[in-house]
Amino acid sequence: MTAMSAIEATEELEPEPEEVDKKLVIFLKSGDLESVWAAFILSTTAAAMGTQATVFSTFWGLFPLVKNDVRITGDNWMQKAVSLMNRGGTDHLKLSKLNMLGAGPAMMKKLAREHKVASPRELMETALEMGVRLVPCQMTMDLLGLKREDLIEGIAEPAGATSALLEADGATTLFI
Amino acid sequence: MTAMSAIEATEELEPEPEEVDKKLVIFLKSGDLESVWAAFILSTTAAAMGTQATVFSTFWGLFPLVKNDVRITGDNWMQKAVSLMNRGGTDHLKLSKLNMLGAGPAMMKKLAREHKVASPRELMETALEMGVRLVPCQMTMDLLGLKREDLIEGIAEPAGATSALLEADGATTLFI
Amino acid sequence: MTAMSAIEATEELEPEPEEVDKKLVIFLKSGDLESVWAAFILSTTAAAMGTQATVFSTFWGLFPLVKNDVRITGDNWMQKAVSLMNRGGTDHLKLSKLNMLGAGPAMMKKLAREHKVASPRELMETALEMGVRLVPCQMTMDLLGLKREDLIEGIAEPAGATSALLEADGATTLFI
Repeated sequence: MTAMSAIEATEELEPEPEEVDKKLVIFLKSGDLESVWAAFILSTTAAAMGTQATVFSTFWGLFPLVKNDVRITGDNWMQKAVSLMNRGGTDHLKLSKLNMLGAGPAMMKKLAREHKVASPRELMETALEMGVRLVPCQMTMDLLGLKREDLIEGIAEPAGATSALLEADGATTLFI
Repeated sequence: MTAMSAIEATEELEPEPEEVDKKLVIFLKSGDLESVWAAFILSTTAAAMGTQATVFSTFWGLFPLVKNDVRITGDNWMQKAVSLMNRGGTDHLKLSKLNMLGAGPAMMKKLAREHKVASPRELMETALEMGVRLVPCQMTMDLLGLKREDLIEGIAEPAGATSALLEADGATTLFI
Repeated sequence: MTAMSAIEATEELEPEPEEVDKKLVIFLKSGDLESVWAAFILSTTAAAMGTQATVFSTFWGLFPLVKNDVRITGDNWMQKAVSLMNRGGTDHLKLSKLNMLGAGPAMMKKLAREHKVASPRELMETALEMGVRLVPCQMTMDLLGLKREDLIEGIAEPAGATSALLEADGATTLFI
């Protein structure tokens, strides 16, 4: 399946999307599978509608931006412990509930494949291709010891709350 | 008590609500008692103020729309397992924390009765009577194996992210 | 360090903030450390940008408004039990995950000190000094048995959903 299937499947059920001269700004603080899924389905759908979409990732929402092959991040034992217990990368997301040592996410991903819903990894790649701006929060990167080279290619430069709030002015805003 | 008590009690403390030519769009991704409570208190209050309120239910937020007497949903063992562990219906909501095997929600519901705050079930019925649009997300219904006949009467037809984002344009938006 | 360091540190990375004739309305339903942190970083940053910021605290989001030296709140055993298990005050916030019996929050606070990010307690004091309106939700105060004298000085009078939605009209809105 292509990463676009989720969006195409949705559009079949929808009225023809109008071109909307709008912005969507998502503050992504959660890093669980279903929250990340929601953030990328909404931002890629918005991009397909001609809306400028921005995902401002902070705290747990930073970890999906970590490269899938990076195991440990951080400078000190505290930051390393957090990354060890909360592994980064779109391939390592956990459900916020019913996680069941990974059985829950595995089931969800299997169901998604059967229903041609794109995985978080595919959706994030699609988001970048479609011009969704993924902006990591500088302050929480510092706090958690995440470095630019720990994060995937193609994302925007790290920024702070002021930038995010300026971008949010006049936009549809969601805190996920 | 009537299901309106929560709103009436609130209005006593408030300035006279103005007629607002506005929309409220809630993306309900959570299915825990306090999140569902918040979504329905805000949407019924908005409706009482003349605001067109829409609750777009996705993922765990779909389960409160399941009929209270439906026990198992889904076609395959994975979907059935999720419904078994996360029973649908407004009568079966759990707190996101301090759940204590159901003692937490029971306490909260008892406190709500004593303080004349409407239960989630009453609030959802009130919401439908007041014209709040409850829209289930088609994609997550497919993913979780939920069928239209598993869900309560009176709700809108299932729709996708494009519809939700179009409705959100110019609205007050909350992701709960 | 001063409580302003977090904001100052952010602004170094940012374009010069414009004066924005805007409102920010945060519905704070969560009481976990990272959510409270996000709410106060965003609202103080907004205030520094000339935006009128309001934090409407409900449910678990009420507990950070409880005085740090108040141990038990509520009139009956149920309300007291909730306060016992979920101690109020900005000094007693827990992480939503990786809490590890308090080791997680202790680590986060240590990291914050090292990176000159203000603590939730400092941020809340800064918020009040900068004119951020902290509004407790009357209905959930009643439900949880929280009294005005349990809460810190300087906050706004308790209000209901109608007030919050009126304030949200035309504002950037976030449900945290």
